[in-house]
Parts: sequence; structure tokens; C-alpha cells
Amino acid sequence: MQVKRSIIYLILLFFLVTHAAFAEVSADQWGTASLVVIVERNTGSVIVIDSKDHRFLGRIEGLGNLTHATIKFSKDARYAYVIGREAVVSKIDLLNLKLVKQVKAGLNSVGGVMTQDGRYLALSNYAPGEVRILDAETLEEVKRIPAVREYPDGRKKASRVVGLVDLPGNLLAFSLMDVDGIWIVDAGRPDFPVIKKFWDVGKTPYDALVTPDGRYYIVGFLESNWMGLLDTWNMDEGVKRILTEDETTRGKDVPLWKIPHLKGWAIAGDLAFLPALKREWAIVYNMRTWRLVRYVPLEGTALYTVASPDNRWVWVDLVGKNGDLVQVIDTQSLEVIKTLNPGRGATHPQFTAKGRAVYISLMDEDKVVVYDTRTFKKIKEFPARSPSGIFFTYRVNKFGM
Amino acid sequence: MQVKRSIIYLILLFFLVTHAAFAEVSADQWGTASLVVIVERNTGSVIVIDSKDHRFLGRIEGLGNLTHATIKFSKDARYAYVIGREAVVSKIDLLNLKLVKQVKAGLNSVGGVMTQDGRYLALSNYAPGEVRILDAETLEEVKRIPAVREYPDGRKKASRVVGLVDLPGNLLAFSLMDVDGIWIVDAGRPDFPVIKKFWDVGKTPYDALVTPDGRYYIVGFLESNWMGLLDTWNMDEGVKRILTEDETTRGKDVPLWKIPHLKGWAIAGDLAFLPALKREWAIVYNMRTWRLVRYVPLEGTALYTVASPDNRWVWVDLVGKNGDLVQVIDTQSLEVIKTLNPGRGATHPQFTAKGRAVYISLMDEDKVVVYDTRTFKKIKEFPARSPSGIFFTYRVNKFGM
Repeated sequence: MQVKRSIIYLILLFFLVTHAAFAEVSADQWGTASLVVIVERNTGSVIVIDSKDHRFLGRIEGLGNLTHATIKFSKDARYAYVIGREAVVSKIDLLNLKLVKQVKAGLNSVGGVMTQDGRYLALSNYAPGEVRILDAETLEEVKRIPAVREYPDGRKKASRVVGLVDLPGNLLAFSLMDVDGIWIVDAGRPDFPVIKKFWDVGKTPYDALVTPDGRYYIVGFLESNWMGLLDTWNMDEGVKRILTEDETTRGKDVPLWKIPHLKGWAIAGDLAFLPALKREWAIVYNMRTWRLVRYVPLEGTALYTVASPDNRWVWVDLVGKNGDLVQVIDTQSLEVIKTLNPGRGATHPQFTAKGRAVYISLMDEDKVVVYDTRTFKKIKEFPARSPSGIFFTYRVNKFGM
Repeated sequence: MQVKRSIIYLILLFFLVTHAAFAEVSADQWGTASLVVIVERNTGSVIVIDSKDHRFLGRIEGLGNLTHATIKFSKDARYAYVIGREAVVSKIDLLNLKLVKQVKAGLNSVGGVMTQDGRYLALSNYAPGEVRILDAETLEEVKRIPAVREYPDGRKKASRVVGLVDLPGNLLAFSLMDVDGIWIVDAGRPDFPVIKKFWDVGKTPYDALVTPDGRYYIVGFLESNWMGLLDTWNMDEGVKRILTEDETTRGKDVPLWKIPHLKGWAIAGDLAFLPALKREWAIVYNMRTWRLVRYVPLEGTALYTVASPDNRWVWVDLVGKNGDLVQVIDTQSLEVIKTLNPGRGATHPQFTAKGRAVYISLMDEDKVVVYDTRTFKKIKEFPARSPSGIFFTYRVNKFGM
């Protein structure tokens, strides 16, 4: 009888434990559409928050050097891909917050993008100069596209790759920094052929962006006083020059478009709001005419300008002088209507999907703060270790993000 | 010894079974950002597909009368809310495909919307004439807003509610069909006050839409030859008349804007593509000027016109004559560039989030088919029982959807 009793206890224990285990799994489940992953740049880690109810979910560590990191997502937002400066790619399961795979896909990387069909993760590498394409499921390398220009005299020159974006039609676009080119790759065809090459469109491209509809690819140059505009619906028209010096900018002592990150542009309807390097303005251009509309005076130099999902506000974080401030521009009046002081090292304002709240990293206060966009009140804060980039999973549905 | 061996076996069995259980849970997990829920209108059921890899996940039954159903999602896309004609609201957990709650929230409902903050599900009811607000978590009723107009002589008249949408600032807008009004509700304040009432803006509003940026609320009227336009950034300007008869439409024998569903509008950049009731055209208006741009000839009468996420194509399903066809309009040339024949009762074309594929219901063939938008080839089909409306979870991030 003693034996049977033991067995019965064990069976009971078995059901108890399995039931408890399932209950726990269920309580800890979440949908993935409202998650936000935030880089902790000095500790090689990220934290995950559910923006639905501003709830901290957890931290994942061991992701390498994240001093210049970006994050991409699988189409279902189940997986986050953290791409570090040293081309270490970490695939994280956002359902259980586990690192499921890690590979090194180059020596030095500056960014990446998912192909439109979600099958491949493409990296823009400085070293070696190339686009490297990984299978998004396995992270296995499927292709390297060396960024090499062959000159008429037979000389070949390798280049760093910048401004990599995905485009409709399952295309990729990127720029070749050291050889003044823009290439288009067809990621929907076997072997990822380069289907277009544009050369000498400006000197030393350093970054690019794609407009929210995926149509226009806009490239900045370090050594030319214009930007390049490629209409991807009409590629045969070639790369046009925009923001050339004209009567609205002539005599001013800056090529104002030389800004650190083109991804820092805010595009709100017809207007583009640009941070101006070394100046205390946001520059507003009309994107139909590419004419200057206005300089909006700020309390310092803008780093990122970010448009709200309804295009009504542009939130601007400042660096250097007044670096703790975030200013809000009304896109209708083109004036600053609010100045917030979230705290030391405030940077990277990012909106929730419909713009109800803004997340801001306080890099020097080890906090992430959340503001209500209507009342401008702080509604939540999270501890975080020197937080920097903030990546919402909804980016997976946006071109070039 | 015999006893101990039994115990050891049991312990082994325990780990085996629990491990197997966890493994199974893990294999059946998915992110929720790329899911699509499709109404099976005659059987009171829905099917769930992961559009990431076009994989059938399952069916949920027992959802009541779905002959005119709509589906909303929680912010994290974990939960789908199926709203049936008889105001039955079914909350489905998309992580395990279980019905978790069902309530009856009225007698006759024509739609619903999630508030911008994701806390409330609002229903537009015909009977009783009201907006009914439910807690999105519990489905408990938190507020009824009766749609009643009080006339100067003290007479009161109740109205059906149509055209309910959410707006930035956590607002709701809706129209009062029987008393010619538009109301704005503040869903971010306790007790959901009606903060604006617009009266006599046109006779018998029957549906409305909000532009993709959440700014303009556009209302159709059954008995007025114009549409109402409310700029929600500048509500004091009131409701303007657009699409009034002008030299571009004068003498034509139709108030063409009287169309079955305003949600059937495709807005692609500056252009709106409207299905034209009883005519074999799509009508193209310029949304800056509200002038007619063109009639695009079709092979039959359009039911839904749907713009691709990159605004490059508008897919149109036909009803009646050639009802099996779907036609594709190029938004640049404004011409039909492709005619597809997906099958009997083809309807409700809906794009994946970045437009790589289109899902189409074949209502009379018991199938859902998936087309590649670049090659126009069918890449997948699923059995489905008289499928109709197709709802991707990415709609949770769009105003009015």
C-alpha cells in the first residue's frame, strides 16, 4: 500500500506541476504587435516593454557591442534582430525573451533591413564593404554583394555601404560611400541580382532614407551641395538633384542638409523637418517643390526630428546645449508649442503606433520615460542602463525601417 | 527496490511529458503582428491565417450572425473582437485560438472601433440608436451614448449611428443617420463627454471614413448631393461641403458619391478612388481640390477599391456582371493594367502589411486565395466556408479601421 500511495502522490504532483507550468505560460503570454525593444548601449543588452499598458517584460543580455545598434523584426514581430556595430546579429524570441541564435556577419556594420517579403535580413557593412544577406529564419548567410566599382581603366575600388533600405517589389536600395554610387538589388529573384547601378550622382553618399510610401529614395552627400532623389517608380529618369542652392538658401553659410542621420528626418504630409547640423533650427522643406519653407528656431541643436503618426506634431530632441530638452513643433503653425525637460541625455523620442504616447531614452539618467502626447505629462518611467535607440515592432510594416 | 524503480520511472515519465508539453507549446507559438482573421459569414465562424508564411492556423466557431460583421484588435494584436450584426461581441485569443468572452451589446450593430488608447471598444448601434462603449479587457459595458437630437420645440428623436471612427487625441467621431448630425466624443475623459455636435450638415448620413492620417472625417449622405468634410485639426471651421455638383460633374445623371460603403474608398497620396454605384467606373478625385480627375472604365461595377500600401496600385473587385473579376488600376497612369479572374464571388481584396501579397475571398467557391502583387500569380489557396471580410491585425495601427 505504501508503494501505491507514493505513486498516487507522484501522479498528483505531476498534474500539479504541469498545470502550474501551463498556467504560468498563459499568464506570461502577450501579443507582439505593441512591443518595444530598447537598446542599452553600454551593457550589450536590450529591454522589452509592452507599450499596450507600458509594462516591463524583461531584459536580454550578451548581445555584443551595441554602441551603434539597430533592431529589425520578423513579419509576425515574434523575433527581434539586434545588429551591433561589429556585425553581430542576435535573434531574440519576443514571446519568451530568449536569445535563440547569434552570428557574426561581417566586421563592421552600420545597419540592416528586412526584405519586403520578410524572408531575408540584409546588412549594410562597412567592412568588408558589402551587403550581406542572411536567411531570416536560420541566420545562415545566403549571399554577399561586394560593393565594388570597376572603372573604365580596369581599376577596381571597394566601398563602404550606407543607406540600405527595402522597397516595394521586394527590392533593396543602398549607396556606395567611397565610389559615389546607388545600387538596386532584386531580393525576389534567385542570387539577388543588382538590377540598376547609378554612378556619380554626388560625392561621398553617407546615408539615405525612403519616403513612407516606399517611392522616393533620398541620399545625402558629404561633399556635394545637394541631395540625390531617385523616383523608384520611374528609375529610368535617373537620380535628380534636390535641395541645391537656390534663392532661398543662397548666401547662407551652410550646406544645411549635411546632417548626421537621414533617418532623423520627419516627414509629415508634404513637409520634411530636418535637424540642422550645428544650427539651432529645424529646417522645413516642402517635399513637392523641394523649396525651403521655414527655419523653426529651437533652444539648441536638434539630433532627431520625429513626426507623430497623425503628422500633427514633430518632436525634436536636442544635443549639446540644452541637451536635456525635447521640443514639440506644431506642423500647422510651424512653431514650437511645447518644451519638455525629460531629464539628462534625453534622446530618441519614439511614438506608439497611433501616437498616444512617446517613449524617450534618458541616456545619462538610466531611465526610459513615457509621455502622454495630449497632456504632455509623464505617465511612466522604467529603469534602464544607458538606454539609446527605441524600436517599436510596428516598424516591421514600414519601408526602410 | 521495486518501489524505487517505479518512482524513478514515474519521475522520468514526468519530465518526458512536461518536456513534450512545452515543446508542443513552443512549436505552436506565433507572433501576432502578421495574422489575418477572415469572416465565414454563413457559419458564424472565423479562420485565422499567419500571412507571414501563408499558414492556416485554425477556426473559431460559435460567433453568432456574421452576415455583416467587422473585426477589431487589441493593441498588441493578441485579441480579436468579432462584432456581429446582432451586436454580439466575441473576444478571441489569437495566441491559442480560443473564444475567451462573448457578450451581447445591443440589438443591431453596424460597426465598431477601438479607442486610440486601446482601452475601449466602441460600437455603433442601429438599435438602440447609440454608441455603446465596452471595456476592451472585460467586455463590460462602461457607457451608453444615446444618439438623440433635441429640437428647439422640445421634441426628441432617436437615431441610428453610422460612420464611427477613432481620431487622434483619443476622440471618437460618428454620424446620426436619422437626425443629420455629427458628434465628437472625448474617450480620454471620464464619462466620455460629447464635446462637439454638428447639425444639419447634409441629409441622412449613411457612412463615413477618416483619412489615413486621422485628420479629415468625410461623411456621405443619402439625400444630399455633396459630402461633408470635417477638419478635426480645426473643428471650429465646421463641416464643409465637398464633391458638390460642379462643372466637372454637371449634367451627369448621378450623385456618384452615393456608394455603399465609404470604407471602400482607396486613398493613394492625393487621389481618392471611389467605386461608383451602378456605373462601370472607378471615380478618381483629387483630395486637395476635391475636383474630378478621371473616370477609370472597368469591366463591371466596383464594390471595393483598395489602395496598395505603397499607393502604386488600386485593386478593385466587381459585383454583378463579371463579379468574378478583380481589376488593378495603376495610380500613375490611371489605367487598368491587369484583370484577374480569381473565381466565383471574388471579393474583399486586402493587402499584407507591406503589400507583397493580396488576400481575396471567393465567397461562392469556399476559398481564400492569395496573389503575389508583383507577378499577379496565385501563390496559395485555403479552404474557407463562404468567406467574406478579411481583417489583418495591422489595422489596429490605423485610424478608423
